[in-house]
Amino acid sequence: TAVEGFFARAAAPGPLAGRRALVTSGPTHEAIDPVRYIANRSSGKQGHAIAAALTALGAEVTLVSGPVALDDPDGVRVIRVESAREMLEACRAALPADVAVCAAAVADWRVEAAGQKIKKTAEGAAPSLSFTENPDILATLSAAGPERPALVVGFAAETENVLDHAAAKRARKGCDWILANDVSPATGTFGGDRNTLHLITADGMEDWPTLDKADAAARLADRIAHALTATAAAPA
Amino acid sequence: TAVEGFFARAAAPGPLAGRRALVTSGPTHEAIDPVRYIANRSSGKQGHAIAAALTALGAEVTLVSGPVALDDPDGVRVIRVESAREMLEACRAALPADVAVCAAAVADWRVEAAGQKIKKTAEGAAPSLSFTENPDILATLSAAGPERPALVVGFAAETENVLDHAAAKRARKGCDWILANDVSPATGTFGGDRNTLHLITADGMEDWPTLDKADAAARLADRIAHALTATAAAPA
Repeated sequence: TAVEGFFARAAAPGPLAGRRALVTSGPTHEAIDPVRYIANRSSGKQGHAIAAALTALGAEVTLVSGPVALDDPDGVRVIRVESAREMLEACRAALPADVAVCAAAVADWRVEAAGQKIKKTAEGAAPSLSFTENPDILATLSAAGPERPALVVGFAAETENVLDHAAAKRARKGCDWILANDVSPATGTFGGDRNTLHLITADGMEDWPTLDKADAAARLADRIAHALTATAAAPA
Repeated sequence: TAVEGFFARAAAPGPLAGRRALVTSGPTHEAIDPVRYIANRSSGKQGHAIAAALTALGAEVTLVSGPVALDDPDGVRVIRVESAREMLEACRAALPADVAVCAAAVADWRVEAAGQKIKKTAEGAAPSLSFTENPDILATLSAAGPERPALVVGFAAETENVLDHAAAKRARKGCDWILANDVSPATGTFGGDRNTLHLITADGMEDWPTLDKADAAARLADRIAHALTATAAAPA
């Protein structure tokens, strides 16, 4: 019957059974002082959908998420962080993993945060903020070493020259795949429910149709399952 | 009967019937580029509660709110904005008003926003951000003129020397009352459900107990109703 078929499928081990996955999602918040911070428009919808899709294929998933207004996906271990440095620490603690998908929009820079609220001066002089480069989570996870996941996937959120920037980012970071998307305000990608992605691998570039973020996540999870199966036998 | 008493009370005009109130709430978001922005930790809970409390006393309330994760209070006209400049424009459009309560945490500065996403350079040089002072909404509404509300109330969210800073702010902005609160992270005020306020008027300073934000709002609305009744007869 249909019901028996459903339970048979649900009980069958998925293609990622026995695999560990690490997914990052959402924005990071970088404190300027106790009340102000720098954020970005990532909603976390795509990253959370990827964590759910990998779980559906049987993977044991750790989701490291910046501040988002989303429910935790079922069956996923969720670690909540605020800053890029906290996100990197949580990612390191989640290793080893067979695959890492870095979907979070991590702040490139942080501010040397003030301990007290920065006051406006009488003449309204603007504050002088000193910026420091944040750790590069995608490059760190992509670096060769015993803990490098077999497959590291990054995102390139761009507003211009999307594919050129994304291909250059893949080479620069040392990751295996990059998913490029155009996040210009007109596309509605940030915060929206749909995404138009381009998958860039060592073999070239593949345009995906505009998909619901859940469908884009399922497509990526399938590709990941095939890639991991091709590179090594799944554990029994 | 109890039910008749309820309807009699609900139907009775409140002490602020015929009065117009303007309330600001929440943070502002100031764009750095199409994906990044500067925000602050205001949840909007206190401002939204004040809008609801003034409505409960019969006022016609316009709530100008930055980005928050709250439902619109019942019976309140809500104008949603992002930046300080948008908030000021919406406040101006909402005048005339008998009372203005500026509970929003407005960014003092904005960044000269870039039209495209600011790229990391090869050597990771930090971006140079140019800051410009934002319009001062509380001072603008407090400035003498035919559209000045009879009563202008500001908030002073501070992390040190709370009362000194708040009293100085009242004098500097030209508003009638300041509600001072300590928003140090340890207090849990930002994002929390309780608030410890100090009301600073021309007559001095009054410590309020720690209250649910709804109760603090009701107390403020009562004070506003008394002040407006004392200064002028309510319209028939």
